[in-house]
Amino acid sequence: MYFSKGIFLIALAGFAEVALSHKPGKGPNRNAKRNFIMVIPDGFGPASEALARHYTHWTNNATIDLPIDKMQIGGIRTRSTDSYVPDSASTATAYSCGIKTYNGGIAVDDSYAPCGTVLEAAKAKGYKTGLIVTSRITHATPATYASHIYDRDIEDNIARQLIGENHPLGKPQVDLILGGGRCYFTPKSTAKSCRKDDIDLLGWAKSKAGYQVLTTRKDFEKKTKLPYIGLFTESHMSYEIDRDPAVEPSLTEMAIKGLNDLLAASKKEKTGFFVMIEASRIDHAGHANDPVGHLHDILQYNTMMKTVTEWIDKNSDAPTTLISTADHECGGLTLGYSLTGPPDYWWAPQYFAGAKNTYEVLAAKWKSYAGTDAAYLKTEIFGKYGVPDPTAAELAAATAGKSSTSAVGAVLAKAMNARLGVNWSTGGHTGVDVNLYGYGVNHLKMVGNHENSDVGNFVAQELGLDLKSITRKLQKNKKFIDAYVKPQGKVQKRDSCSKHVNEHL
Amino acid sequence: MYFSKGIFLIALAGFAEVALSHKPGKGPNRNAKRNFIMVIPDGFGPASEALARHYTHWTNNATIDLPIDKMQIGGIRTRSTDSYVPDSASTATAYSCGIKTYNGGIAVDDSYAPCGTVLEAAKAKGYKTGLIVTSRITHATPATYASHIYDRDIEDNIARQLIGENHPLGKPQVDLILGGGRCYFTPKSTAKSCRKDDIDLLGWAKSKAGYQVLTTRKDFEKKTKLPYIGLFTESHMSYEIDRDPAVEPSLTEMAIKGLNDLLAASKKEKTGFFVMIEASRIDHAGHANDPVGHLHDILQYNTMMKTVTEWIDKNSDAPTTLISTADHECGGLTLGYSLTGPPDYWWAPQYFAGAKNTYEVLAAKWKSYAGTDAAYLKTEIFGKYGVPDPTAAELAAATAGKSSTSAVGAVLAKAMNARLGVNWSTGGHTGVDVNLYGYGVNHLKMVGNHENSDVGNFVAQELGLDLKSITRKLQKNKKFIDAYVKPQGKVQKRDSCSKHVNEHL
Ligand SMILES: [Zn+2]
Ligand SMILES: [Zn+2]
Repeated sequence: MYFSKGIFLIALAGFAEVALSHKPGKGPNRNAKRNFIMVIPDGFGPASEALARHYTHWTNNATIDLPIDKMQIGGIRTRSTDSYVPDSASTATAYSCGIKTYNGGIAVDDSYAPCGTVLEAAKAKGYKTGLIVTSRITHATPATYASHIYDRDIEDNIARQLIGENHPLGKPQVDLILGGGRCYFTPKSTAKSCRKDDIDLLGWAKSKAGYQVLTTRKDFEKKTKLPYIGLFTESHMSYEIDRDPAVEPSLTEMAIKGLNDLLAASKKEKTGFFVMIEASRIDHAGHANDPVGHLHDILQYNTMMKTVTEWIDKNSDAPTTLISTADHECGGLTLGYSLTGPPDYWWAPQYFAGAKNTYEVLAAKWKSYAGTDAAYLKTEIFGKYGVPDPTAAELAAATAGKSSTSAVGAVLAKAMNARLGVNWSTGGHTGVDVNLYGYGVNHLKMVGNHENSDVGNFVAQELGLDLKSITRKLQKNKKFIDAYVKPQGKVQKRDSCSKHVNEHL
Repeated sequence: MYFSKGIFLIALAGFAEVALSHKPGKGPNRNAKRNFIMVIPDGFGPASEALARHYTHWTNNATIDLPIDKMQIGGIRTRSTDSYVPDSASTATAYSCGIKTYNGGIAVDDSYAPCGTVLEAAKAKGYKTGLIVTSRITHATPATYASHIYDRDIEDNIARQLIGENHPLGKPQVDLILGGGRCYFTPKSTAKSCRKDDIDLLGWAKSKAGYQVLTTRKDFEKKTKLPYIGLFTESHMSYEIDRDPAVEPSLTEMAIKGLNDLLAASKKEKTGFFVMIEASRIDHAGHANDPVGHLHDILQYNTMMKTVTEWIDKNSDAPTTLISTADHECGGLTLGYSLTGPPDYWWAPQYFAGAKNTYEVLAAKWKSYAGTDAAYLKTEIFGKYGVPDPTAAELAAATAGKSSTSAVGAVLAKAMNARLGVNWSTGGHTGVDVNLYGYGVNHLKMVGNHENSDVGNFVAQELGLDLKSITRKLQKNKKFIDAYVKPQGKVQKRDSCSKHVNEHL
């Protein structure tokens, strides 16, 4: 009755495809033109998908799949070399370089030596390359594809490498950049700059490297040609539920524009393209324990995945492989608690229905509101967060904390999480495996549960890339490594497995 | 470097197998002899496997797989018809009947009508059948395979149906039973009986139905022949870490004995066997938020799975399909918390190393200890739970609570969970998807993410079973349904999605 025949058909089609690809001379092979789309939903744990699916069930009053449910092929183990709980830098390095490293390391190994990435190796073979994200483009995940540095937080250095103004291979590696994080590309003399120096990276990109630079929605609508860099916000782009479509494109819109331009640019080439698309802010909402922001960025990720698989089907003359997996779970999200006792459980996604903004936006709105009247607080703050019925205690707490966005945010989050019946155990990451999804050519080769580093090696294998030769080239540039990759002076390596425990008893 | 070639080889072998099976006249098909092993690790969520794997990594100082890691092929969606968070009854009914039902319902639909199970349908076609568990055999999961009743808690009725003394199809359905729960099979006049009547089910099984009855380890060692029932404890069998091997066999030992006897009994038949094996008490440790009990029952489940896959390989003349998936997550387990801030996380499986018992056993041991000296408490209670360094506050709490096993249990659990850095959000279940594992013939047909009810239908499809005809037969027995299946009088159906929320704000 609930048997999904679709899954069987997809699976069988996949088997046939794989079988074909192993007969010599038939089907796609290493020498044929290929595209690879790597999609990373940052901080998207197993419970994240169930949360969004249950909300969709409630909305539609039916047991239906979300787009990516059809695509699960296994799971990914996320641990890093120095912790059972990874950060984005270590896991994204596993995806980009095919090696495990320590938490915080950007495409370097445990001894701070740079490792060749699939993006760099693809570029070296003539593939077109792209990075499409909703965070700052200098954040850990995209950074690991085209920059190398011992500490993820040194984002002004990362920006220089990403755009190629100062990259150990001597030239730009990324043909297409879409996302947020303009502030690391403008000189410190400029308002809102995050740089500590006067380097004008956008100016350099335009005048010296031939990049088209997009900064507005209007720019985004333009017909574009590689290479280009589109940065639509100073820092991260907005959470999907807070996004003003007149100002910022959605992740889905960026993904499709990017794919079309990568396809057009590689049309006459022997090689296709490699692109990494990140649904970056699922993670940020997890850190914030904000179920509303989490939900809507997950739904947008699902929409993007559906649209991308349709794009793959439409463009089957350029065979494409899609793999998608998170870098780690975030927030320790769990769904449901006991009521009077088993089997009576509470988890009520219907409370999501009224939410119009994240608490980040609403706490700021309340802070800047001139009055303190409960009517406004109830309808415009609690109500817009999906809590139409705040208790007297909740209203009092939000009134008392008015001047502190973090205090009011915590009140709102607590109110919503309690009504939903969901729990968060931490403001950080956790060590659970994440789900693995795939589509297109040869994705069924990845059926199973793998170490995260297997994913980077799978990309390299499918595109016929030589990661080792890029690693050798990078490691030859000792001058660059000493000046920009390694820590300056002695650095205590982070180690989450050997300290602090007594603080937490 | 971490690329697991094994996975690829397994996967490719699988594809070839599937491809073959779809050519008429080649490979295994519906009419050929087949065995199906359904393994349910009750309450085993995605974080459960990561917890056990990380402990194994720490023990071996290496990044290695657990046995089932190699076998993941997707995920399972667990919701029931009346809750986004299921119980074992509703999900096991999805696995046994291929339909979704409400929390608490044992192989009945939403209107309390019995549904034919894969075990009953297999029995009708001549397959040998078995149930092997570590809980009481009358607990929800095994119950859904050969009994039908509106409420999982009416276990004395379930016992009568399971053994066939009073089953709607008029005769015993299960050829082999191994597990715990003798108390529901002995008359109330007997010491330790859980029955409310004087029916002697073990006596009936022996004298009227030809069952061999095993109750001791020594019995277990005997050469046995179907049909038999082995119940080694009055209620649940012990947690693996607490088990005395001289008294109780392990789940692995029971599984292999069962498989050998099922194989021998079906050797000369045209049909093979169906068996459901449950690692029942992973769930109970989750409810107890006891990481020690949880870990060791998970490791035992992994050992059993490894041994069973080796058995399948050795007995390839009788082609066997293995599917394993939990019924739901339990406890809201998450791994890790933040220390000084990202990316510094704490999750320290090394604390498991000293644990020798669950807190259930240790709290009872402390209660029955004649003294109150801190030396004994420290080494024999905390120390045996893996906490060699209890704080003064922890010792004081365990001393103050000495007479209450639940109070001392909570102190021990809190001490251990804090040191490990793991969290539990609930004493009940949660709504996250669970992992899907497979091995043997045609298991790759199930690659993907499925509704739990798809699993029951897959078993039926693979064994060529007709669930509908069994459902019709069951539903024709109106006298039985009125007397034993339906609620006597009006019953308020449990609904976890429409009440109680205000209690939890
Ligand atoms: Zn994060
Ligand atoms: Zn349970």
